[in-house]
Amino acid sequence: MMSPRIENFPGLPPLSGFELANSILDQVRELGCEIIYDEVVKIDENGGRFIAYTKSGRRYPSKAVILAIGKRPRKLGVPGEDKFVGKGVSYCAVCDAPLYREKNVAIIGWGEAVYEAATVLNSYGNRLYIIFPGKISKGELSEKLSRLRAKLMERTRVIEIKGDLVVKSIVLKDLDSGEISELEVDGIFIEMGYVADTRWLGNLIEVNENGEIVIDKVCKTSKEGIFAAGDVTDVPYKQAVIAAAQGAIAALSAYNYLVRLSGGVEVKSDWRKLVE
Amino acid sequence: MMSPRIENFPGLPPLSGFELANSILDQVRELGCEIIYDEVVKIDENGGRFIAYTKSGRRYPSKAVILAIGKRPRKLGVPGEDKFVGKGVSYCAVCDAPLYREKNVAIIGWGEAVYEAATVLNSYGNRLYIIFPGKISKGELSEKLSRLRAKLMERTRVIEIKGDLVVKSIVLKDLDSGEISELEVDGIFIEMGYVADTRWLGNLIEVNENGEIVIDKVCKTSKEGIFAAGDVTDVPYKQAVIAAAQGAIAALSAYNYLVRLSGGVEVKSDWRKLVE
Repeated sequence: MMSPRIENFPGLPPLSGFELANSILDQVRELGCEIIYDEVVKIDENGGRFIAYTKSGRRYPSKAVILAIGKRPRKLGVPGEDKFVGKGVSYCAVCDAPLYREKNVAIIGWGEAVYEAATVLNSYGNRLYIIFPGKISKGELSEKLSRLRAKLMERTRVIEIKGDLVVKSIVLKDLDSGEISELEVDGIFIEMGYVADTRWLGNLIEVNENGEIVIDKVCKTSKEGIFAAGDVTDVPYKQAVIAAAQGAIAALSAYNYLVRLSGGVEVKSDWRKLVE
Repeated sequence: MMSPRIENFPGLPPLSGFELANSILDQVRELGCEIIYDEVVKIDENGGRFIAYTKSGRRYPSKAVILAIGKRPRKLGVPGEDKFVGKGVSYCAVCDAPLYREKNVAIIGWGEAVYEAATVLNSYGNRLYIIFPGKISKGELSEKLSRLRAKLMERTRVIEIKGDLVVKSIVLKDLDSGEISELEVDGIFIEMGYVADTRWLGNLIEVNENGEIVIDKVCKTSKEGIFAAGDVTDVPYKQAVIAAAQGAIAALSAYNYLVRLSGGVEVKSDWRKLVE
């Protein structure tokens, strides 16, 4: 949803993540799929039967579950961050850049995402600060960053976000000298990648050291009857077409699992079994 | 290429396999990819370096290889089959049905593919025979087949294809009575699924009992430096979007492999490494 431009989805012309998501939503609705907007907060398992409990208090019993819960932006983890979310703190430059036209804006983060956010923010005439905790290694990225209208601040850490109703400033620490300073900004864009939020699943399934759900090549998790697809899995490449295909694989694997439970005929690459 | 209508490719309206393949081809050309039409007949490996030899006599040395060689239609394996390919014997109803308008046509095969071929051939007003070696099990497929304008022949095997310049008849064996008969036909459509033709690779990489290339979830084969994508892999579900995603995964894995050889920075889900 947050991608401004997807150019590498096979068969599609360049389009935004929003457009792609909507066209898939239309397609799924046309196929008769019911969509429920709610948040699952817990999944119980008992002898191969699952119950998903939602925030709104509903419960959904099932024999199979596909987890396609994506990832969330990684937080900076400093005082003021949670308080000012949506009041100056943003995790999506593409979504929120228009709100900061010709303002003072800081980007905090790592790598390509920082460059993409800076490009978007530059187009709104902002005064831009890019704050890195480390050193930017020489290469394609550092060259691209140097061509932006932005002040690069390396070896600098944000230690606090301050304001009243909205953000007014950030407190910075120079990691070499230890010096503390304050920088007036109206907006802070945090671009530190994404994390898999799977703690709410408890010990139901195996996750890796990043919290990503461990799957095999047919999208099975460590728990029989539970499947996973998309960015939340431990497949290291996060691309739209990969997530789309994992959705298809997880659905077919879940279908086969349910069919096996009821003694029916599984989907195979080869339909031989249907007639012999 | 042979699908008349693909309805399950996320983000795309229903289209033919030909249209999808062409739009991907255009996309790849626009990205500057050089396409060479030739057939690789052998791959040699020596200390992590590969050489691909082609039918036309060219050789391509490389440090990494992605095998995306798809599958071929399974043959019936009877006398006359090879002789009459393109002269009455076809493996693609969608491609060749228009050549047999209002003719006598037999379909030999299994499952859904037979139904799809029969639907296409029915629309050209053919007199249609559907020949099964086994019994059609009761269910959705048998109901669909019974609604076609076609004669179903169960427990019947084609043992020979006869003709002069073109196909004239097929020789049939009744598997219950053992009786031999001859049926006059102008065309035979063989719909017995697809096989992975990987024998030409020798012992270079591990394949399963169906000849499919064994991969892990990032499309690595058993041989370092060789990757595989698409229908030829041992992922059991053969769908366009799955093949497309495996192409992306194999490309990223090959990229990371080459980068590792040269001591560079690998692609990660998280770009942290670029700046820290």
